[in-house]
Amino acid sequence: MADVTSVSPLAPDRFPDLPAVAGVRLATHAAGLRYEGRPDLMLAELAPGTTVAGVFTRSLCPSAPVDHCRRIIGRGTARALVCNAGNANAFTGAAGAASAELTARAMAAGLGVDADDVYLASTGVIGEPMDDVALGAALTNLAPALADADPTAWAAAAEAIRTTDTYAKGSSAPIAGSSASVVGIAKGSGMIAPDMATMLAFVFTDAAVAADVGRRYLSSSVAGSFNRITVDSDTSTSDTVLLFATGQAEGNGGAVDERAFRAALDTVCLDLAHQIVRDGEGATKFVAVTVTGAADDTAAEIIARAIADSPLVKTAFAASDANWGRIVMAVGKSGQAAERDHLAIWIGAEQVAAGGAKLDGYSEARATEHLKGDEIDVRVDVGVGSGSATVWTCDLTHGYIDINAGYRS
Amino acid sequence: MADVTSVSPLAPDRFPDLPAVAGVRLATHAAGLRYEGRPDLMLAELAPGTTVAGVFTRSLCPSAPVDHCRRIIGRGTARALVCNAGNANAFTGAAGAASAELTARAMAAGLGVDADDVYLASTGVIGEPMDDVALGAALTNLAPALADADPTAWAAAAEAIRTTDTYAKGSSAPIAGSSASVVGIAKGSGMIAPDMATMLAFVFTDAAVAADVGRRYLSSSVAGSFNRITVDSDTSTSDTVLLFATGQAEGNGGAVDERAFRAALDTVCLDLAHQIVRDGEGATKFVAVTVTGAADDTAAEIIARAIADSPLVKTAFAASDANWGRIVMAVGKSGQAAERDHLAIWIGAEQVAAGGAKLDGYSEARATEHLKGDEIDVRVDVGVGSGSATVWTCDLTHGYIDINAGYRS
Repeated sequence: MADVTSVSPLAPDRFPDLPAVAGVRLATHAAGLRYEGRPDLMLAELAPGTTVAGVFTRSLCPSAPVDHCRRIIGRGTARALVCNAGNANAFTGAAGAASAELTARAMAAGLGVDADDVYLASTGVIGEPMDDVALGAALTNLAPALADADPTAWAAAAEAIRTTDTYAKGSSAPIAGSSASVVGIAKGSGMIAPDMATMLAFVFTDAAVAADVGRRYLSSSVAGSFNRITVDSDTSTSDTVLLFATGQAEGNGGAVDERAFRAALDTVCLDLAHQIVRDGEGATKFVAVTVTGAADDTAAEIIARAIADSPLVKTAFAASDANWGRIVMAVGKSGQAAERDHLAIWIGAEQVAAGGAKLDGYSEARATEHLKGDEIDVRVDVGVGSGSATVWTCDLTHGYIDINAGYRS
Repeated sequence: MADVTSVSPLAPDRFPDLPAVAGVRLATHAAGLRYEGRPDLMLAELAPGTTVAGVFTRSLCPSAPVDHCRRIIGRGTARALVCNAGNANAFTGAAGAASAELTARAMAAGLGVDADDVYLASTGVIGEPMDDVALGAALTNLAPALADADPTAWAAAAEAIRTTDTYAKGSSAPIAGSSASVVGIAKGSGMIAPDMATMLAFVFTDAAVAADVGRRYLSSSVAGSFNRITVDSDTSTSDTVLLFATGQAEGNGGAVDERAFRAALDTVCLDLAHQIVRDGEGATKFVAVTVTGAADDTAAEIIARAIADSPLVKTAFAASDANWGRIVMAVGKSGQAAERDHLAIWIGAEQVAAGGAKLDGYSEARATEHLKGDEIDVRVDVGVGSGSATVWTCDLTHGYIDINAGYRS
């Protein structure tokens, strides 16, 4: 048995140093909603004038907090974010919707803001009612604990939203040509760990970003980061990415170059997305699957995802087995145009196949050597067009089974 | 570590008694193409006038034998079937296509039939060239070994086409109102075990069935059986189902009632499909997932497949964990219409959820008791319409990882 409580072997050495974001104050609290003896509730208070953009799960059975956020996000303004870990408030019916509204109203009253400017996220068990009494009591403790979002507060906030994550996740990037920056925290272990459900990412900037600009860049950024990772192909009821822009950075009223902002946002989202894959349940290898030569970029992504989601490919990676027949299989099942007789495959720098057959001179020993590392690159050219895409995943090991066939019961 | 060589705990007690099919003669041979000391090549010689229908993999990277069969099947006639285990002859380029044609021509010459009436199937390693010398030598040994397809010959044929299968698979059904019957053999362990690739099923009848009738009923039968099972969501380069009708049954020139034939064909295909799931890699439980209340039957099948393919649902079943939140998650990710607030879920006879929330009086103990058995029934009503479908799968265990992260290298 793998030790399911140990930190992922792919974890970064330590939580990064993150700068303060003007206009963001953070607080955490141990509400005891499911976990004992650790903070499980976080609050981010946002300065007046903060804009918001969000991307939510495509699940048709979304959680009550996702319903709430979707309802209010058209306003484009935000004053607070409340997130709890331990209970997803998903598939909880009318009682769950009431719990979400109660949380928003209580927090709004405590901060003196509009309840429709309070964003919610919940992660944890599906189908269990929220403990409204414990939650209500805890909410009254949050506002007095608010502190500026200094490096210590970021780490505490990232810790408070963990469920099965084996480490807290944070990232930042400066916005070139300004004093502003983009800072994000995230949780997720497995594309979803469904009892402790959800991929959540909260991204903050003190740049001034209009809500419609934020929406456009966040959608694009998520498409290239959080939507390009897969641990087990499952999709949470609660997946949420929120971007808050306070506009409180010094100089020019927080104005920044849009391209510089976009670059910083992309950097933070991609870093957080990779950190989630590196904390994939049972992961021992970080795998980048790149597909080139597809009909278009969308086709390339579908093929790359078919490879990255295949249990057979992922178990081969776990065993450092250069089992490229499984890659051919995954390309074939993707349903996207591929020229079998022009297919080429690389494992690391070693070309395995060309022209639809094994390459003369292919060295399985060299391919295996690459696969023995914990950073794996696989590339497939499908010989049709010029579309390309990269998807990131991890291997499939006994650790995944240990975690998912055991931890709830 | 699971013992990967042991027989599946879900295996039937023994290979069934199968009747002879007039007009079918079988032979097997140890060709040594990959395996040592066991037959790995089978031949079925078919009487003149035999019709054929086939269903092949949807993979866009099909094997050379699949290409061959697709090329000739429009003729509707067959005189022989040759199948080898150990090498899939897939992703082998022009050399692979030449090997397939060599096999068909050699067998045709040995039997005195047309090479375009010789059907081929190969299962095994992807990407390795066939050993044409060994294969050619073996083919000359097949024709002299032909014997009537008595029960012993069926068992030997089913044994010869095994790869990672832990038991040989066969099934039969009489055709009501006639002396004819339908007999099938199959291999498959995992929807695909891609080194030892492939789901193969060969079905024989001594009824007289016109090729177009056979095509229509085989397609329908496969849609409700082999296409409704999933072990790991992967799709082989070589999946093949062939139906051969010799018309050699006594009385009325083999004529049978079409509905009686169809019923027998459905029975045999469903039995063989279930036997494949029961031999799923690492399987310890046989799971039927039924979805009702969907927009239509196709939507129901997609939702049922999302549940049956979810690694998180399958690991919960492995642990006898009544983790119904994972079922909600899978419904939500399926992309098909479902009314979250009307969703109802049953585990065995125990209703878990109704009206989009956990049912008052739900007993997790009773649900767990059902899950501790090795035959699991799950039903979900999605509250939209009257579409329904059942998909069969198995649980996901350490045994799957042991087999797939280990056996090739």
